[in-house]
Amino acid sequence: MVLLSGGVDSATVLAIARSMDFDAYALSFRYGQRHLVELEAAARVARENGVVEHRTIDIDLRCIGGSALTADIAVPKHGSVEELGKSIPMTYVPARNTIFLSYALAWAEVIGSSDIFIGVNALDYSGYPDCRPEYIEAYERLANLATRAGVEGAEKFRIHAPLIHWSKAQIIKRGMDLGVDYSLTHSCYDPDAEGASCGRCDSCLLRLKGFKEAGLEDPGKYKEQGSSSR
Amino acid sequence: MVLLSGGVDSATVLAIARSMDFDAYALSFRYGQRHLVELEAAARVARENGVVEHRTIDIDLRCIGGSALTADIAVPKHGSVEELGKSIPMTYVPARNTIFLSYALAWAEVIGSSDIFIGVNALDYSGYPDCRPEYIEAYERLANLATRAGVEGAEKFRIHAPLIHWSKAQIIKRGMDLGVDYSLTHSCYDPDAEGASCGRCDSCLLRLKGFKEAGLEDPGKYKEQGSSSR
Repeated sequence: MVLLSGGVDSATVLAIARSMDFDAYALSFRYGQRHLVELEAAARVARENGVVEHRTIDIDLRCIGGSALTADIAVPKHGSVEELGKSIPMTYVPARNTIFLSYALAWAEVIGSSDIFIGVNALDYSGYPDCRPEYIEAYERLANLATRAGVEGAEKFRIHAPLIHWSKAQIIKRGMDLGVDYSLTHSCYDPDAEGASCGRCDSCLLRLKGFKEAGLEDPGKYKEQGSSSR
Repeated sequence: MVLLSGGVDSATVLAIARSMDFDAYALSFRYGQRHLVELEAAARVARENGVVEHRTIDIDLRCIGGSALTADIAVPKHGSVEELGKSIPMTYVPARNTIFLSYALAWAEVIGSSDIFIGVNALDYSGYPDCRPEYIEAYERLANLATRAGVEGAEKFRIHAPLIHWSKAQIIKRGMDLGVDYSLTHSCYDPDAEGASCGRCDSCLLRLKGFKEAGLEDPGKYKEQGSSSR
């Protein structure tokens, strides 16, 4: 069971799960995000990786709000990656990974899967609390109390977060080794109508830094003014 | 923040939260349950208790399935409460409370609430793993790692499960002391088209047992054949 957003990290995680000989089920969410184009990327990535099934679940986080990704709050832009703050940014979506993992847990339990993969990363990340190792450990513990696994002595759930200690460059290099086609992915929080990336949001800046440090060209599509200045 | 299904337990929990002088926000879910009539009960109970706001979120658990409450699986019926099994029944909805609590956590974080109330009960219950004290403790731990509470030293979340060690009769007695009008509530998993309760599903049997042991008349509406045999 792989949480698949269609970005660099989840595409790499899916490739890692496949390389471990898992049959993969991919789960995406239409959660009111302004960058809906990422779902097309998720579908492309799922197809390319031969998943058994890819589901996209509609969930309404807009009615909860509180984030620049789901409410009418501007996505913060920066001149460079060094400007990313250390505090939790406005693009943090309250409890998003907890909600995503909970659906993954539900579907995993129904299909009899014990392995849930998530592409969180605690190094080149935006400072979200639900991307830290202690969060993932707490979720795994919860998963094994929340379900049949906890009561009937069945196989335990494992929450796999293989990227958690990697830099974005390491993630991209590992993905390239596994044959990930990053031209299929999408990262930008604030793409234009044609799906071109802004090049200046947290997500774009981290992606660009990753490709640069990996010594690779980012195959992503950027708006003209954004791509020339970095 | 009170999870409100519209049944006996959550109505009592809401009254308890109100008695502790909390301003209450109530959260219900349209999750594909066959007993949708419970949502009307939730709205009645919320209104009666003067909540600040009551939201009902649409979530699609039918697309995940795996339960008699959300898939095309018959709701098990029993002749008496003694027949309720000790194993996890078919009405268990995979990860349901985890999904519910995750939405509650999201909304609580947005409105600045640190107190989440849930009417789970580990005594007169159906054997669901996500109703046990160790589950609630694990969720509280998770909540404080998942959110701004964990990173910025803000106030910690508390998951209140005041009914967890009570019998159904104790719950009902406490609710009566607090003035809960149980005629507004709905418990049955398999009501008829008019909303009358079956009297034979797990939920009905536990409710009826509770009122009986409390020495009170159940104000709920039951189908004729069901109500006469107990």
